[in-house]
Amino acid sequence: MVELKQDERLDYLLAEKDMRIIQSPNVFAFSLDAVLLSKFAYVPIKKGKILDLCTGNGVIPLLLSRRTRATITGVELQERIYDMAVRSVAVNGLQDQIEIIQGDLKDMPETLGHGKFDVVTCNPPYFPTPKKDEQNINEYLAIARHEIYCTLEDVVYSCAKLVRPGGKVAMVHRPGRLVDLITLFRTYHLEPKRIRLVYPKIGREANMLLIEGIRDGKPDLKILPPLYVYTDTNEYTKEMEKILYGNNDHELE
Amino acid sequence: MVELKQDERLDYLLAEKDMRIIQSPNVFAFSLDAVLLSKFAYVPIKKGKILDLCTGNGVIPLLLSRRTRATITGVELQERIYDMAVRSVAVNGLQDQIEIIQGDLKDMPETLGHGKFDVVTCNPPYFPTPKKDEQNINEYLAIARHEIYCTLEDVVYSCAKLVRPGGKVAMVHRPGRLVDLITLFRTYHLEPKRIRLVYPKIGREANMLLIEGIRDGKPDLKILPPLYVYTDTNEYTKEMEKILYGNNDHELE
Repeated sequence: MVELKQDERLDYLLAEKDMRIIQSPNVFAFSLDAVLLSKFAYVPIKKGKILDLCTGNGVIPLLLSRRTRATITGVELQERIYDMAVRSVAVNGLQDQIEIIQGDLKDMPETLGHGKFDVVTCNPPYFPTPKKDEQNINEYLAIARHEIYCTLEDVVYSCAKLVRPGGKVAMVHRPGRLVDLITLFRTYHLEPKRIRLVYPKIGREANMLLIEGIRDGKPDLKILPPLYVYTDTNEYTKEMEKILYGNNDHELE
Repeated sequence: MVELKQDERLDYLLAEKDMRIIQSPNVFAFSLDAVLLSKFAYVPIKKGKILDLCTGNGVIPLLLSRRTRATITGVELQERIYDMAVRSVAVNGLQDQIEIIQGDLKDMPETLGHGKFDVVTCNPPYFPTPKKDEQNINEYLAIARHEIYCTLEDVVYSCAKLVRPGGKVAMVHRPGRLVDLITLFRTYHLEPKRIRLVYPKIGREANMLLIEGIRDGKPDLKILPPLYVYTDTNEYTKEMEKILYGNNDHELE
């Protein structure tokens, strides 16, 4: 049995009814954003190497493991959250496929080598670093949500160095940063190829953005159909239900 | 009465039942793209100066004239199409509000002056210049559709020079060029603030893109709700019908 510390819970990973993940409301709990990224990202089915930066409690590696036989490496800066990810991998018996590393993503191109990965995913901190007095008092959450230890440029730079030429980088972010994302992707030779916008419901502005670029790819962006999260009556749309609860995309089964 | 030349027709401007425009299938006919841009673009209601580059037969100045009392200048490179625009303005009796200039948009910052316009709109050529033997044999249409006399960078550069600091630039283009658009907007200090994606119908990829930037603006992009053109049964959606045939946005009436 896996050990649970302090206020940790052993939650179900909704879409994967036989998977569990360790979470804590005060340290780290995964969000819808990570679930959507793990569905959006391209993965090689049979073999390859996948890297997930800012992996948190390992939610993306866990979800991706159901779509691929590739090895998956997750990188998490915070020791306490890294430890949750390691135990989350163990509780699912996935130590042979998923490795979790504790470290700073900025050091990873040197540590792991340039161009070694077929796919790199990242659900980075969304918010520019606020003034000290505005910052989240909870340091775990502040580091996960704010650009305290890495800027968006650090993230894109590291992704671009770690992925092989022709490999794919997929990220989730807020629409307000699309302009930054696109200019940084271009700067570091990740050509944006697919964008999907997520809208809370019909008639509202987008509040989430999925983007995939190819290292040294040719310009040819496709903007996929929008994804709506809620219906007019505030229930999940059919597509969201399928993403959250469905298990009909098990290419490996 | 206005003179019609060769195969020209005097068409209705659908959304404006009392307006007419001169078109020719072999020289220039306006597209849905121009109509959507003229609805999307911000315009000052009571006064100001608006500029429309690549104005063609003047469709955007004509449509904008119903939303504003500002003066509107249209610039068209091709003499034959410029002449259609001049007569289209005359047939609607709008010579006091709309002026059409024949010239190259690349010369306009020098001719018209830097930073003189509150709003600049442009529906530019969409396609990179093809090889000579692939080019549209009809030169009028080739010049309007391909980047023969101006690249996207020329267009964005001219817009940026012509608009005043704090003024707005609105363009329509294909989603495949979003990455180019955003990087060029940033390069020339037009900060993208609003994007709207147009989808042919639910479940399809976007096939048109509306973008508005503010000269020297602060980063803060909003992605508006999607616009669908057709329903599942291939009829115009309610929103498209309102744009094409409705006349319920006459702020001036």
